[in-house]
Amino acid sequence: MDAAAHVTGKARAAKAAARALALASTRTKDEALQQMARGLEEKTAAIIEANRGDLERGRAAGLTRAFLDRLTLTEARIAEMATGLRQIAALPDPVGETVDAWRRPNGLEISRVRVPLGVVGFIYESRPNVTADAAGLCLKSGNAVLLRGGSEALDSNTAITQVLARAVEKTGLPAEAVQVLDTADRAAVMSMLTLDRYIDLIIPRGGEEFVRLVAEKATVHDRGLCHVYVDESADLEMAAAIVVNAKAQRVSVCNSAETLLVHAAVAEGFLPAAAARLQAAGVELRGCERTRALVPAVRPAAESDWDTEYLDYILAVRVVASFEEAVDHIRRHGSGLAEAIVTSDLRRARRFTQEIDAAAVVVNASTRLVDGSQFGMGAEMGISTSRLHARGPVGVRELTTTKFVVMGDGQVRE
Amino acid sequence: MDAAAHVTGKARAAKAAARALALASTRTKDEALQQMARGLEEKTAAIIEANRGDLERGRAAGLTRAFLDRLTLTEARIAEMATGLRQIAALPDPVGETVDAWRRPNGLEISRVRVPLGVVGFIYESRPNVTADAAGLCLKSGNAVLLRGGSEALDSNTAITQVLARAVEKTGLPAEAVQVLDTADRAAVMSMLTLDRYIDLIIPRGGEEFVRLVAEKATVHDRGLCHVYVDESADLEMAAAIVVNAKAQRVSVCNSAETLLVHAAVAEGFLPAAAARLQAAGVELRGCERTRALVPAVRPAAESDWDTEYLDYILAVRVVASFEEAVDHIRRHGSGLAEAIVTSDLRRARRFTQEIDAAAVVVNASTRLVDGSQFGMGAEMGISTSRLHARGPVGVRELTTTKFVVMGDGQVRE
Repeated sequence: MDAAAHVTGKARAAKAAARALALASTRTKDEALQQMARGLEEKTAAIIEANRGDLERGRAAGLTRAFLDRLTLTEARIAEMATGLRQIAALPDPVGETVDAWRRPNGLEISRVRVPLGVVGFIYESRPNVTADAAGLCLKSGNAVLLRGGSEALDSNTAITQVLARAVEKTGLPAEAVQVLDTADRAAVMSMLTLDRYIDLIIPRGGEEFVRLVAEKATVHDRGLCHVYVDESADLEMAAAIVVNAKAQRVSVCNSAETLLVHAAVAEGFLPAAAARLQAAGVELRGCERTRALVPAVRPAAESDWDTEYLDYILAVRVVASFEEAVDHIRRHGSGLAEAIVTSDLRRARRFTQEIDAAAVVVNASTRLVDGSQFGMGAEMGISTSRLHARGPVGVRELTTTKFVVMGDGQVRE
Repeated sequence: MDAAAHVTGKARAAKAAARALALASTRTKDEALQQMARGLEEKTAAIIEANRGDLERGRAAGLTRAFLDRLTLTEARIAEMATGLRQIAALPDPVGETVDAWRRPNGLEISRVRVPLGVVGFIYESRPNVTADAAGLCLKSGNAVLLRGGSEALDSNTAITQVLARAVEKTGLPAEAVQVLDTADRAAVMSMLTLDRYIDLIIPRGGEEFVRLVAEKATVHDRGLCHVYVDESADLEMAAAIVVNAKAQRVSVCNSAETLLVHAAVAEGFLPAAAARLQAAGVELRGCERTRALVPAVRPAAESDWDTEYLDYILAVRVVASFEEAVDHIRRHGSGLAEAIVTSDLRRARRFTQEIDAAAVVVNASTRLVDGSQFGMGAEMGISTSRLHARGPVGVRELTTTKFVVMGDGQVRE
């Protein structure tokens, strides 16, 4: 069977499953999530076995050690996936929530009610544990999901999805609620993008280029170019702690910082000490001229450094003459994901939150806190930088749409 | 200058204007809306003069009388446009609204705040009065707008936009907040679609084909295939009034009914009388066999009638054996805009609102009530059938996005 027919068949089945899911009770969906968690625990050995195949092929193909580490499933990692599913079960059900309700002068009662999107196509290149998270979030929000992970994780993702689909079936919901595209054929991804008759939303999760390739229906990033700006009024001890955390707590993620901006008035008091702490955390600095005058060991930054997502232990550093110059730098170089200011000046904090245009604007805290679980929204499909539909962490509520329900007793239009 | 350069220049200017608009106070925006209303009133003669040119060209090009009537601006119609702008000024400002706010265990304060989308590209084929509505809605929601109406209304739209832009400028806001593509060149529209660097949202408003052509970023319809289903438990007097209103109150609009479905148990008691009232309102009926057995004068419906948006004094009529058959018919033939049931049975009403998937589901009222002003949401850009971002009437709130504002006192990620 060719790739297009394969994908179309799965998408059509997903559409039918979505109808049943949309009407499923919260209790049934939560029971399915519990079964999914139990299934992963019971089938741990089989999943690790499938994962071993992926790892062997990966080694043979010469994948880096870091990549292979991300790909590896262990008993502990599978247990975490099960815990994640139970946490999703504990979240409130977004479906059926009345978002808004009012009464018109003619007695018409209008309400806006949350309903599932339908079928979600999720295309991602991340670790296999994302498969369980995505399946859980979609099921909780009443959506069928068609998963397409990286081809390196094909066997692992297929094994996980089979376990999850069987668990869903046990509760009387259709197994087609959770499906995987079990082919490494790239044409399969491309045909997913043309199936808007069956697939209501495509979520591509990955780097800039990948997302651009996947036509921009919704945009969920695994990367981001985030700044921390240390204002002249900043508590410098707090600023250093935030910068070190934003850069070095985990470097390979979208909400880690790539550029540090420092107001000239505090550069001398702040930069030498902060540089020492960053270097102690293993971070290499690349600085502007004024930075290098204060910390001579710093390598010079090239113009391209302001636009580079290092995703590594490297930080670009620039001294700015004013608050306005910092805002302007962020406007020109930021990716619109998360931007932070450290300041004690209320007016500066207000201006920063108003003038910076990003999914999240952070005052006096680390950009690393910008994510679904840190925000208390539960697991997430990723962080969206799209201005449409959902902006910021994409959790169960963001996987829904609304419909208007209008109740009358014979009203007509005059 | 070629079309692409022309459009790019306007889009870039719109982006710069959008920044100023995003920070403008409610008072300034409302003052601009008042100035816009006053400007239209003061320049009525010049607008009518420009409109005369469009009408002459339209007559020469052989446009239908109905089309020319829609294109015609009169003093009364321009006064209505001014009134519409004043109504938009009176709406609450969506920008800055805190949609949600909570506090995390670590003391982090998270809020989700409404902000403008940025630059809206609005492509429409409707009457020139839509130009003022769209400009007003975008300005109120802090967005710059790039308008592209039908080429038949080019001079009218250009004249209106010039008046509006000058009025905006009087309040200190940039004139580029409201711009029109003053060219009939179709390439200009196509290049609008590629400018996602400057334009944040394209809203195409028009029929199915037009919208498909304009890449589906957001989908705002001027058409729709809406059903009224008369259940076996319906109050038949109420049902007749609703059907006549849904069909005949205004036939050329998206929320008028195209198909009537009647439960078999009440067909005999309902159809002959309802048919007489519809025919008295000038409506031609096309019916299934069972309909024709009860009302012999009715023309037979072809299979294609169930999929036809007449936008005319024609109504397809079908007798269904059950509630389920009605739901199934609507699922297969509905356009997802507005669907109505007339029933006295609470369980049926609940099932209908749950099982029918449409932007608006209506119980015991006319589908004609599904629109922004009837819902009390103010004027609208149109009614969206997209599941993403905005579904239903698109008013000022739907022209915004949100951003997270995170306030801390030194929180970092553990």
